[in-house]
Amino acid sequence: MQTVTSSPATLPERTSVVVVGAGYAGLSAALELHDAGIDVLVVEAQERVGGRTLSLVDEGGVVIDHGGQWVGPTQRDFLSLVERFGVETFPTYLGGQNIERWTDGSKRHFKIAGPDDGPGMREYVRVMEEIDRMSAAVDLENPAATPGAVELDSETVHSYFERTVQDPDARLRLALAVQSVWTVEPRDISMLHFLFYVASAGSFDQLMEAEGCAQETRFANGAQEVAKRISVLLGDRVRLGAPVRRIERSGDGVRVLTDAGDVRADRVIVAVPPPAGQQILHEPPLPTPRARWLAKSPMGDVVKIHVSYDRPFWRDRGLSGESTLYGDPLLGFVFDNSPHDASAGVLVCFVYADRVRAWRALDERERVREVIDTLVDLFGQEAAAPVRYAEKDWAEERFIGGAYAASPAPGAWIEHSAAGWRTPVGRVHWAGTETASVWNGYIDGAISSGRRAAAEVRSALAESEPTGYDGISEP
Amino acid sequence: MQTVTSSPATLPERTSVVVVGAGYAGLSAALELHDAGIDVLVVEAQERVGGRTLSLVDEGGVVIDHGGQWVGPTQRDFLSLVERFGVETFPTYLGGQNIERWTDGSKRHFKIAGPDDGPGMREYVRVMEEIDRMSAAVDLENPAATPGAVELDSETVHSYFERTVQDPDARLRLALAVQSVWTVEPRDISMLHFLFYVASAGSFDQLMEAEGCAQETRFANGAQEVAKRISVLLGDRVRLGAPVRRIERSGDGVRVLTDAGDVRADRVIVAVPPPAGQQILHEPPLPTPRARWLAKSPMGDVVKIHVSYDRPFWRDRGLSGESTLYGDPLLGFVFDNSPHDASAGVLVCFVYADRVRAWRALDERERVREVIDTLVDLFGQEAAAPVRYAEKDWAEERFIGGAYAASPAPGAWIEHSAAGWRTPVGRVHWAGTETASVWNGYIDGAISSGRRAAAEVRSALAESEPTGYDGISEP
Repeated sequence: MQTVTSSPATLPERTSVVVVGAGYAGLSAALELHDAGIDVLVVEAQERVGGRTLSLVDEGGVVIDHGGQWVGPTQRDFLSLVERFGVETFPTYLGGQNIERWTDGSKRHFKIAGPDDGPGMREYVRVMEEIDRMSAAVDLENPAATPGAVELDSETVHSYFERTVQDPDARLRLALAVQSVWTVEPRDISMLHFLFYVASAGSFDQLMEAEGCAQETRFANGAQEVAKRISVLLGDRVRLGAPVRRIERSGDGVRVLTDAGDVRADRVIVAVPPPAGQQILHEPPLPTPRARWLAKSPMGDVVKIHVSYDRPFWRDRGLSGESTLYGDPLLGFVFDNSPHDASAGVLVCFVYADRVRAWRALDERERVREVIDTLVDLFGQEAAAPVRYAEKDWAEERFIGGAYAASPAPGAWIEHSAAGWRTPVGRVHWAGTETASVWNGYIDGAISSGRRAAAEVRSALAESEPTGYDGISEP
Repeated sequence: MQTVTSSPATLPERTSVVVVGAGYAGLSAALELHDAGIDVLVVEAQERVGGRTLSLVDEGGVVIDHGGQWVGPTQRDFLSLVERFGVETFPTYLGGQNIERWTDGSKRHFKIAGPDDGPGMREYVRVMEEIDRMSAAVDLENPAATPGAVELDSETVHSYFERTVQDPDARLRLALAVQSVWTVEPRDISMLHFLFYVASAGSFDQLMEAEGCAQETRFANGAQEVAKRISVLLGDRVRLGAPVRRIERSGDGVRVLTDAGDVRADRVIVAVPPPAGQQILHEPPLPTPRARWLAKSPMGDVVKIHVSYDRPFWRDRGLSGESTLYGDPLLGFVFDNSPHDASAGVLVCFVYADRVRAWRALDERERVREVIDTLVDLFGQEAAAPVRYAEKDWAEERFIGGAYAASPAPGAWIEHSAAGWRTPVGRVHWAGTETASVWNGYIDGAISSGRRAAAEVRSALAESEPTGYDGISEP
């Protein structure tokens, strides 16, 4: 057996609750417990907090959100923390016209797309409405109990579109919607997961739109700021650079073994993405439903590219920056990601799923050229001379492995979710946006998942003997 | 960082090639290298060899194969080892009539099923022939290059049957075929994986049938025997109880860290099932395609139940024992698994996929009663009094996690196989039946995969500097 040597100065010997992961899920769980006066320790593999948010100040002094970046008006859990910490937000820039570039290279400018705007739009709107209707039947607490769940989890979204959507242009629109929201291809997910995710956000529009929806509001200091503030509040209860390798559980406690030492506790909340969760060894092994659920939850693929200019010159031309590219081999969407005061001009380009695979096959020079060529085509010659260029492929984050989230494979919901999705395994509880019923896959879902797991733990601790964590026996 | 304390007496400090896993893939790789005079060390997590084969002698002295058990006439790699070690085989019992029990409980007896035999049979045969035709186009070395691969990998087998098969009885037959061969539901795999697997075996019949096919021949001492013989030949080059936790690779060597110590080598062959492979930490991390391939390759679910009697009494009644149960909530197939001399009567019952989930929800008494009731219904009152009963749920094997094999999720082949399926990562090579082009998922595929990986390593070693493994620098 491996012998882990730990410096006693590094981690405390005991705590009440260990939280694995200092993303929004883990930090929110720890904050809830800390607020309730419960002793908690967050162990984080990386040298930073924030998980799938990463807000860095570039050389020009501009905050760049390389990961999650928005908050919407129905994301109540996220907004409650934004308010608590008094974090500064501002509205996503929505002035000017959007661009839609079609497969033949033609461009249309529009403000708000109606059903008669552009190829396939009428059919797209019809399908979106149908999806909303179908998603209303989803059981958010137990998606496998949704009426028709077996049939819905047996067909890919691709097959559903093939079967029910005749207009190839509408299919292109729907495919890009899936790629941009789920960061997978329509072939990778079932109709049940698709409908669950729509229901979890409230509607298809909630996922896709800005005004009144998920992309409405941005953060002056980046979306990572709330995480940083929680971390500051928790102080040395957050330990960085401590990847968890093994969790041993018994009837009266848990032992969490990290590269920075090990710690005993009453309970543990694991708040990491599913594939990262698979790399933690459990003793005894996880029950089959949980192991299968993890094995059937691969991460999506997304690359964010930020191209910066001295100023948002496209706004002068009456353009919002928001551009949708149908049939482009690399880019899917472009948004204006400039700071609120427009002291710089920043465009963010999104690469999704199959396009990420094509993207990775190019060398950096080719990638830069492709992106700049596209931006010149959309916004004119001024786009040819950016002052900065930055890429972020989330698959390269070794303790995260992809973004935005994991998407269960077809069949996973009905086969393994009953006991595998988020049911505690003894003293081990599960958080992470993938375990959320509301805004699953989003920062908001991460926070609500952490709060839910914290509530489970508080309830369990309240029921347990008053001996608390002193009652743990040696394994 | 973890400090691994190793006893120098336990593992050698260096070898040329480390093989991870002593299943058929790993042992075959090691045997090839050993035959070629190359220094090799096999490290196995469990206290036994054989992987997904497990042949135990029961209290009555009867060999019971709890895992893989058959060899077919086209499984040339397996047969070559059977011959080399002079292992005793015998034909699967095919005397008497088979039983087919339909959804309404009615039973039909037949010898060889023709297209007019039983509900849905004509349509089933038509679809099987169509599947064979389609599978002829599969590129076995690169399934993603199969004509129409994107479309084929975007639709589940369930959806294909819904779309192309009208007869509900034929659909039931096809579903049980998928369940019994892939140990998943038709919703879990794409048409591309389905066709690849059929092509890999040669035909749909090859997968389903006994005479001239995959289930033709059994082993007097069980299917694990060849593995045991290889292990004896390799002697102390096989080390048990040494789970590999981490593999560090550099330009001039690898370091393999196990619970029994660590060892340096020129190259390593990882020959474990994909989910087990995910539990090994790689330094540096695996490239994204390989990580994604593993994340999208969950194991199937199968339980084998052996029910033993004093003698194979069903043979007296002109029955082969082979029974197919349509619509049964637990059992799929029953076979005569008696020893060749009929000194005992053994029936093996197979539980697959969704039925395994139902199975696990019952307690053992309920399970036994269900099985015995079914056997009584099939074979008469004599079945009510077995002398022994044994269950094997392969999901409970912590270093294996399921059986027979892993099935890539829809999309996995076309998205990640180009670099993720079996392409070596630096000095790390991949074996295991999931990496085989011929008889993928079978013992034969495991063996050919080991031989292919060994050939890669031999070729790499032949090209490298003659300094050999002495050239490895400290990390």
